[in-house]
Amino acid sequence: MTDHIQFSPDQEALVLLDQRILPGREEYFVCRNTQDTIYALQTMVVRGAPAIGVTAAYGCYLASREVDPADAQWKARLEKLLKDLEEARPTAVNLRWAVELMRKAWHALPDLNLEALRAKWLEMAREVHAEDIEINKAMGRHGADLIDDGDTVMTHCNAGALATAGHGTALGVIRGAWEQGKKIQVIANETRPFLQGARLTAYELHKDGIPVKVACDNACALLMQRGMVQKVVVGADRIAANGDAANKIGTFGVAILARHFGVPFYVAAPASTFDLSTPTGAGIPIEDRTPREVTHVGEHQITPQGVGVFNYAFDVTPAELIAGIVTERGVIRAPYVENIARIIGGK
Amino acid sequence: MTDHIQFSPDQEALVLLDQRILPGREEYFVCRNTQDTIYALQTMVVRGAPAIGVTAAYGCYLASREVDPADAQWKARLEKLLKDLEEARPTAVNLRWAVELMRKAWHALPDLNLEALRAKWLEMAREVHAEDIEINKAMGRHGADLIDDGDTVMTHCNAGALATAGHGTALGVIRGAWEQGKKIQVIANETRPFLQGARLTAYELHKDGIPVKVACDNACALLMQRGMVQKVVVGADRIAANGDAANKIGTFGVAILARHFGVPFYVAAPASTFDLSTPTGAGIPIEDRTPREVTHVGEHQITPQGVGVFNYAFDVTPAELIAGIVTERGVIRAPYVENIARIIGGK
Repeated sequence: MTDHIQFSPDQEALVLLDQRILPGREEYFVCRNTQDTIYALQTMVVRGAPAIGVTAAYGCYLASREVDPADAQWKARLEKLLKDLEEARPTAVNLRWAVELMRKAWHALPDLNLEALRAKWLEMAREVHAEDIEINKAMGRHGADLIDDGDTVMTHCNAGALATAGHGTALGVIRGAWEQGKKIQVIANETRPFLQGARLTAYELHKDGIPVKVACDNACALLMQRGMVQKVVVGADRIAANGDAANKIGTFGVAILARHFGVPFYVAAPASTFDLSTPTGAGIPIEDRTPREVTHVGEHQITPQGVGVFNYAFDVTPAELIAGIVTERGVIRAPYVENIARIIGGK
Repeated sequence: MTDHIQFSPDQEALVLLDQRILPGREEYFVCRNTQDTIYALQTMVVRGAPAIGVTAAYGCYLASREVDPADAQWKARLEKLLKDLEEARPTAVNLRWAVELMRKAWHALPDLNLEALRAKWLEMAREVHAEDIEINKAMGRHGADLIDDGDTVMTHCNAGALATAGHGTALGVIRGAWEQGKKIQVIANETRPFLQGARLTAYELHKDGIPVKVACDNACALLMQRGMVQKVVVGADRIAANGDAANKIGTFGVAILARHFGVPFYVAAPASTFDLSTPTGAGIPIEDRTPREVTHVGEHQITPQGVGVFNYAFDVTPAELIAGIVTERGVIRAPYVENIARIIGGK
């Protein structure tokens, strides 16, 4: 599945499969400018750290089309649009990473006229897009060896094709093991409140013919107690320099339960998800989203009128609960500070 | 709140507030015979171990009205109805306890004619009903001392007025602390899939003016990590002789997280919830319910067509994770085998 993020040259627009309404309906959302792109990111038309990065790269190109070369202030106006884009969501570092990549290319060539910048950014966005698939395939190859024939693998949220340009990070590892001919099964935690597991992970694995069953997040302890889970593999939205990994709310709890039951817990994420400027997970901002995601499922209200809710969208799993971090450069193991500096930081 | 289970002498029927559709609508479901009662239990019109017990007691009376004293086989037919009622749901022992109470009273007076048996059973059901409220109030008094002024108390599922004849078990403890003037707040885990926390716990506490917020089950680890939870109090559906406690799916996970973060985890349940004939939690049957509770929220389907789900309705929290069990006879602490035998078994 790679057609969920497409840049359409005919429409000069980014066309996104609307993940808010999957699996019920397959509809596309068209982003023609920065505001459309920010809206798509914030409402989770598109979500998942690597997919957010790819979207933001195209978003920079769309931003460059909004400013007028005849305007003496176009550089300042463009920088403002990049800033807005970069701040659309706080937790996934890939958003900042992609915008920063584009910004640096621009600042490296200060004399670039706007027309040339536009051409360069579109080319770069296409590269980020294509590379992400290759990165995930490499991650899949490295991670596949962690999965044994006959394993049932639990995953939380959706770190799949839909969360990336294609193939997926955690689901890339699962696809890698499946492609090796290992007879595996997947338990997708439904992942309240946005139900990425029930809706998206189940959808894309079922489409690929990989055996998957959905469990309520509440079933995790019982399933592990009964020996029904051999491995856990999840994605990440930001990984600190010490290996602490922010991911979808509930991941931290799954990691504690995995430790309790002796189930190895792995994270799969590309190098772009590491934020070496953040020393530990304590420095990762946690997004607090709209109450409506908790109070309603579809149009159906589940909580009484007037009762408040919590909707923290992420939590941070401490490195000591993580058995290994699968990247496109290999599997990183403890001691994380040293190994992340060496493998990701190039030190 | 005590009007959610009413026996109407005018209608000769058991009238139940339909908990499947709360808090959206307040509608009543009328049980006129054993089949209606079994349907109400199985579809969770009424749920919660003590409320199941009270309902079953009235169900025995309704069963006695279905057999004909002119029928030579009425005793066998009545026994068959009691058996069906007793098997309506497997996990909560209060169901079996209530039916067995009625059966014993019948067998103790073998010469009772049907008319006299009916009168006796209606009287007994009314007693079970009235006593349950008193039991919960006693539990509330014993348990209130475990809660400190300023605490935020997390609860899972609904062990409230709606799960009992009134006042509640876990929520009875919370109401007890509130009535002592302690400024407490409650976090209600939403409790997928049936959402008893989001729908029922939030509804009845909000109605009573006790501060309550709803959290997705996934938020538990983050909320505890941030120091936002001082105590956990839950109900139980069956407690084995060693203190292992079956309760709504997800409770076991909350207990493991509570242990990880050093938050005391309490169970509140009446003596009728203890099953001394079951030595440990391994012997408690776990109900496997319809997939539809997981695949749909209201009429809204959340999983892709053709994808299977797990829907185990309960899990068992091992006694070693439980800081104390609040009963109407006081708080039972470890060592549980000895103390349960003494306080519940009368040994």
